[in-house]
Amino acid sequence: MNTATNLNELAANRCFGGWQKRFSHTSSVLNCEMTFSVYVPPDAANGTTVPVVYWLSGLTCTDENFVSKAGAQRIASELGIMLVIPDTSPRGDDVPDADDEAYDLGLGAGFYINATQAPWAKHYRMYDYIVDELPNVIQQHFNVHDKAAIAGHSMGGHGALMIALSNVKRFSSVSAFSPIVNPMDCPWGQKAFSHYLGDDKSEWQQYDSCELMREQGKFLQIPMLIDQGLADDFYTTQKLAKPLEDVALATSYPAEFRYHGGYDHSYFFISSFIEDHLRFHAKHLAEYV
Amino acid sequence: MNTATNLNELAANRCFGGWQKRFSHTSSVLNCEMTFSVYVPPDAANGTTVPVVYWLSGLTCTDENFVSKAGAQRIASELGIMLVIPDTSPRGDDVPDADDEAYDLGLGAGFYINATQAPWAKHYRMYDYIVDELPNVIQQHFNVHDKAAIAGHSMGGHGALMIALSNVKRFSSVSAFSPIVNPMDCPWGQKAFSHYLGDDKSEWQQYDSCELMREQGKFLQIPMLIDQGLADDFYTTQKLAKPLEDVALATSYPAEFRYHGGYDHSYFFISSFIEDHLRFHAKHLAEYV
Repeated sequence: MNTATNLNELAANRCFGGWQKRFSHTSSVLNCEMTFSVYVPPDAANGTTVPVVYWLSGLTCTDENFVSKAGAQRIASELGIMLVIPDTSPRGDDVPDADDEAYDLGLGAGFYINATQAPWAKHYRMYDYIVDELPNVIQQHFNVHDKAAIAGHSMGGHGALMIALSNVKRFSSVSAFSPIVNPMDCPWGQKAFSHYLGDDKSEWQQYDSCELMREQGKFLQIPMLIDQGLADDFYTTQKLAKPLEDVALATSYPAEFRYHGGYDHSYFFISSFIEDHLRFHAKHLAEYV
Repeated sequence: MNTATNLNELAANRCFGGWQKRFSHTSSVLNCEMTFSVYVPPDAANGTTVPVVYWLSGLTCTDENFVSKAGAQRIASELGIMLVIPDTSPRGDDVPDADDEAYDLGLGAGFYINATQAPWAKHYRMYDYIVDELPNVIQQHFNVHDKAAIAGHSMGGHGALMIALSNVKRFSSVSAFSPIVNPMDCPWGQKAFSHYLGDDKSEWQQYDSCELMREQGKFLQIPMLIDQGLADDFYTTQKLAKPLEDVALATSYPAEFRYHGGYDHSYFFISSFIEDHLRFHAKHLAEYV
């Protein structure tokens, strides 16, 4: 049974005939006050039940980067899709950060996993927040379909892929830009996972998209679209996208990988192709309406 | 004769098949180093001569707000239009700011006029920068048509309208979101003009769009589109848009004014309607190609 969660509306801006809104609420999973953003398309503002696309952002982001930079509202308005954009970590004075305030650990770097190690375990439970608590809050306060889609960028691409692969029946489809796909084998992932999960790498596998696809992809599959820029500085250093394509090829997993010459890791890349992602999700979400 | 100006490329991001770029250069008009942004559409990157739309931003903005928030590159890419986005004031340690660092005077608040009063007159000559120096820089470094369009938001809407009305033959068309149209009769304009131009209000008229339309609009007209949100807090307090519509009606000036219920002063409003503005300019620019 879900306890009702109060939402505190922080902002509401009319946008493409709908509303771009921002809320805060008390998260019992993360033990802190959390902020998230929602684009409410005109259909939903008029009372129609609509599908949701969750967007998970990358390192250093809050809920606001995607909202202001991706240009997604135009397409969501046309397609009648609600966008839900959470923050990337727990927040607040009580929430521990990296000792050196590094951008890739602690605040802004929750990696969408449930930490088990001190001092992180009390607050850094972003997996449960994204998979359970936030969808419950959305279901309580908005008129939305059960089945949702999930997408993200970089660390958020990791989050979207890993959560979709672990919850295949919960989502219609998953997409990612420039995703970390093999956190067990790249510097960002190894740093975060060793701090949050400890040194036992058997605990890491549940959060590694390559491992999940190799393991579970044989039985249950989910429509998947991945875009990667070839001028992205992190493409090789953090082993983005490609290792998952190798697993998909090896296991005949039906995912679409697209590589784009000249594009980098920025929101200029995301904005250029976000329309394709939302149309991809709309097509698959329509199968469940 | 124009002296060649060197451009220093600060950033280049591939975006919608073209390039979002950022440059700095030494401005001899403003006596400082200036930064501007350019969206180079695919056609221009391929060597085609393209038209330019200049975008003038509002108070507190730099060249980056419109670039990251308006979602204009998608449409500019499709239409084959170059976007040029200057900064909103001179910048640098030598450039005076308001004593109290007010947001509506000094840095970020150049008002697109030529200051005549101390300590502003040495640097605050944004009118000459936008009308002469920057277009010369663009002509030197990019393959663009002579005739351009101009658009802007709030203080930048004032700049676009005032500059177009004073230079009717230079521009194909002008458009504005939430523009200051009567700076002689609103708090923002009166504060800025009294500091930059002194107390003699006869010096102010040349920069007031209502005055310019009333005076020159009888003889020479330019296609004009203005969008105003009705939930904009500044709509009444700063007398945005409406006083110019009154002059247009009184003088039979053929401008289109559109009012939008629920929309505010933010980039969520701009992004919702920027497509209409760029298509409006493309239509009029096409008459000169």
